[in-house]
Amino acid sequence: MNTLSSNPPESDSTRIMKPLDLEEFKRQGYMMIDFLADYYKNIENLNVLSNVEPGYLKKRLPSSAPFQPESIESILEDVKKHIIPGITHWMSPNYYAYFPSSGSIAGFIGEMLSTGFNVVGFNWLSSPAATELETIVMDWLGKMLKLPKSFIFSSCNEGGGGVLLGTTCEAILCTLVAARDKKLSQIGKENIGKLVVYCSDQTHSALQKATQIAGIDSKNLRVIKTKKSNLYAMSPASLISTILLDVENGLVPCFLCATIGTTSTNATDPISLLCNVAKDYDIWVHVDAAYAGPICICPEFRHYIDGIEEVNSFSFNAHKWFLTNLACCCLWVKDHNSLTSSLSTYPEYLRNKNSDSKIVVDYKDWQIPLSRKFNALKLWIVIRSYGVENLMNFLRNHVKMAKIFEGLVRKDGRFDIFVPTKFSLVCFRISPLAIINSNGNEGCYNGKIINDEYLVNELNHKLLNSINSSGKVYMTHGKVGVFFIRCAIGSTLTEEHHVTMAWKLVQEHANSILGFQGKRLENNGASKTHSG
Amino acid sequence: MNTLSSNPPESDSTRIMKPLDLEEFKRQGYMMIDFLADYYKNIENLNVLSNVEPGYLKKRLPSSAPFQPESIESILEDVKKHIIPGITHWMSPNYYAYFPSSGSIAGFIGEMLSTGFNVVGFNWLSSPAATELETIVMDWLGKMLKLPKSFIFSSCNEGGGGVLLGTTCEAILCTLVAARDKKLSQIGKENIGKLVVYCSDQTHSALQKATQIAGIDSKNLRVIKTKKSNLYAMSPASLISTILLDVENGLVPCFLCATIGTTSTNATDPISLLCNVAKDYDIWVHVDAAYAGPICICPEFRHYIDGIEEVNSFSFNAHKWFLTNLACCCLWVKDHNSLTSSLSTYPEYLRNKNSDSKIVVDYKDWQIPLSRKFNALKLWIVIRSYGVENLMNFLRNHVKMAKIFEGLVRKDGRFDIFVPTKFSLVCFRISPLAIINSNGNEGCYNGKIINDEYLVNELNHKLLNSINSSGKVYMTHGKVGVFFIRCAIGSTLTEEHHVTMAWKLVQEHANSILGFQGKRLENNGASKTHSG
Repeated sequence: MNTLSSNPPESDSTRIMKPLDLEEFKRQGYMMIDFLADYYKNIENLNVLSNVEPGYLKKRLPSSAPFQPESIESILEDVKKHIIPGITHWMSPNYYAYFPSSGSIAGFIGEMLSTGFNVVGFNWLSSPAATELETIVMDWLGKMLKLPKSFIFSSCNEGGGGVLLGTTCEAILCTLVAARDKKLSQIGKENIGKLVVYCSDQTHSALQKATQIAGIDSKNLRVIKTKKSNLYAMSPASLISTILLDVENGLVPCFLCATIGTTSTNATDPISLLCNVAKDYDIWVHVDAAYAGPICICPEFRHYIDGIEEVNSFSFNAHKWFLTNLACCCLWVKDHNSLTSSLSTYPEYLRNKNSDSKIVVDYKDWQIPLSRKFNALKLWIVIRSYGVENLMNFLRNHVKMAKIFEGLVRKDGRFDIFVPTKFSLVCFRISPLAIINSNGNEGCYNGKIINDEYLVNELNHKLLNSINSSGKVYMTHGKVGVFFIRCAIGSTLTEEHHVTMAWKLVQEHANSILGFQGKRLENNGASKTHSG
Repeated sequence: MNTLSSNPPESDSTRIMKPLDLEEFKRQGYMMIDFLADYYKNIENLNVLSNVEPGYLKKRLPSSAPFQPESIESILEDVKKHIIPGITHWMSPNYYAYFPSSGSIAGFIGEMLSTGFNVVGFNWLSSPAATELETIVMDWLGKMLKLPKSFIFSSCNEGGGGVLLGTTCEAILCTLVAARDKKLSQIGKENIGKLVVYCSDQTHSALQKATQIAGIDSKNLRVIKTKKSNLYAMSPASLISTILLDVENGLVPCFLCATIGTTSTNATDPISLLCNVAKDYDIWVHVDAAYAGPICICPEFRHYIDGIEEVNSFSFNAHKWFLTNLACCCLWVKDHNSLTSSLSTYPEYLRNKNSDSKIVVDYKDWQIPLSRKFNALKLWIVIRSYGVENLMNFLRNHVKMAKIFEGLVRKDGRFDIFVPTKFSLVCFRISPLAIINSNGNEGCYNGKIINDEYLVNELNHKLLNSINSSGKVYMTHGKVGVFFIRCAIGSTLTEEHHVTMAWKLVQEHANSILGFQGKRLENNGASKTHSG
């Protein structure tokens, strides 16, 4: 039955193009590698934050698709001329905005391999290696984080394990839906309007969005206020009192999202204490460590997720701070049956004996979509290419650079550190105690302490716009009571000299805005962390 | 202020690894291109459907992550030895299962570029080119499909336009949530239990899943039965009667999912007629053309989406049949405000003046997650690299090959075509009119017409397992009343000789199962399309 090994007949559709001609594949593949290597080589010469105007691109590109093919050379020419100026360069070493996206050689070639195989691993059968490698890599990572056995496939018999999704939004939506349905199975579907979801005012907007999508009434999203004195962590006492009020009003507590490393200030919620509260009301607790999760592979940071054995689910983004190109979110759950009973479908055309017998994992039932790429390859290649020790040291080096930046800020009396730096995010601002000596625009403040929160916010805003407009760095802001500047260190290419130069740049722009030429305010350290 | 151009000091963290060293990037990048070119070159020698046993991989890989780095050479050696045997080769020219995933040079290098830039394009500001190119490419594609102006950014002032998502599941979930909230804003959130969603028994399971996630009671998902006499299209009359009953019972019709090219049999629902029904009840109509959408760029196939101007939203997967590597789903909506009012969040740290003034598109509010890659690049590069004419001819050639396969089936009297082939999916089965001459297992049927539906299903199942076990092709099944085999032609590398050889293989295995050696049943054509 060797019928398939015969050669193609000569008459075979010669006029049809060959979109996978191998010589052309190699030629264009090499060309793209060279193009990207050139891009990285010159990335420091580009404005980090793009300065194009809205609508710039439609003035430059045709309004309809070409009827005839165009060469890759002319396409790449257009990328250089029209696309690159419109990109904000997340891979730049001078990128400190939001949280940087993490890219690496290993992450990149892992994505190439996954894209090249182009398998759709919705269930085990559709590509067994895609599912099995994912369970293995999630166990590797789980062990690196010292997650309890209840989250590790190979050590637990009770339905724990991990899955790779695209983003934290998906991780939160999947777990929220699981929690919702678990609760509704007890109280009846008609009571969906009674379910309450808890978070703090520092929780990522992903929770709000997931709540909206899951059909939970937005008026039942409890946003617990945090305080600076508590470094913006969620207070278990506030959680209790909020829950008690809800229960008194006949509502049903359902889901709590705690965060390790919030977006604005890197606040860390006290997992154990919150779980103590949650367990009395059978609340599903999810821990979102989107950014800070990876650093917990270092023993000296592991304490931030102490208590993780008590939560229902835990996630972080490997594309944020773990050298894995977009998109890659790691989610672990203790009881995958809760997840799959909400998310599974089993249409006829996917039926097969291994799925029927439930001896295999079908990841389609752990996520929102049906289709999925071979997600595990890039994470597997990242971990193997660098090894656990190098990964730990690489992350530690970012924390070290953040400490250096924080130290530089503290040395300049015109600035405050808004909250002490825990990981690699530095939150700082021009201090209300700074002396302003403006050149006219705010002339009335000549030589005076600012001491006006509105004006301080304005000045910080102005400073941020000023440094970003320079094109030399990109930082973003936070506003928690007051406006402050966030310097998030985590871009793969960032080295110590970038960080010290970034601070020099901030100082130079501050000089210009405050009207000083490098002079320091006379001020003792005691008042340096100003209450916001 | 040229502070950032200074050279790195020599003391700079020399002991930290460099995960983006450019020489190494090139070396590994080229190596991966060569690896994949080799994979494609030899792909026909591999078993299309992997035959590994569940759990095979954990026996071959370590149970913990390596502490020290490993070389890319040893990793790729493991890919060859342990991963490739566990892959089902979706890129093989002999892959005819489900719907093939579509890969091409242009799709591949487009993904490389997007992965290399690694920008997170959640809003306009985070990388203007990512948003703007997406609006341009969606307009290109919309015009190629002759979508009405109400779906095209540049021709409409009423909020129409397109977005790239990962999968059809996401497209359906996003539009369902928009429809749900639009209706709830009229009848009150507390009435979520009254909303009804309509589909047919041929609609993709994505709708069931979206319904589950969106918190719509699963008992309110109306699955309208289809009939073979109607080629499994949804009947407007059945839709009306179902709606009337719901309304009579105080329920509220909300969402209808129509399909062009269903998974099982490529049924096409009559869009216009269904919209006529839906509009009387203000039902959101979504058209899912996940697989068949692209062929509608050919004028002779465009009629399948006639009436599209009446629907609210329309989607197809470019990763299924449009040469775009995974994942890429194209969604157009007429009124993006419905979408964004359900899906938008606007946390402080994303605030910026362009978003504030609403002069830009922020795609984060058109999708489930916040983060997104620079999605438009690969589709843009696909369309430009091949051009509209080549793309049309490429798709037509798949349809032509399907017709050839169908013709071969029809010539063999032992087989029935289950439904006439519209696009590139051929549904066929051993006919109940075939004569069985088994060698013992079913000895009692010697020389008799089968004429027993249960036995016919069993034989077709056996035939499918037999051809798939050969490793030489991979087809999957459908079950609509009866069990049949699906041959979905659409893999990028498939040429005419593959298709004719695939049919020879089917015949050889049928010979063995039916106990014939290439003999034909004496049977006239009239009864060839057997009613299932």
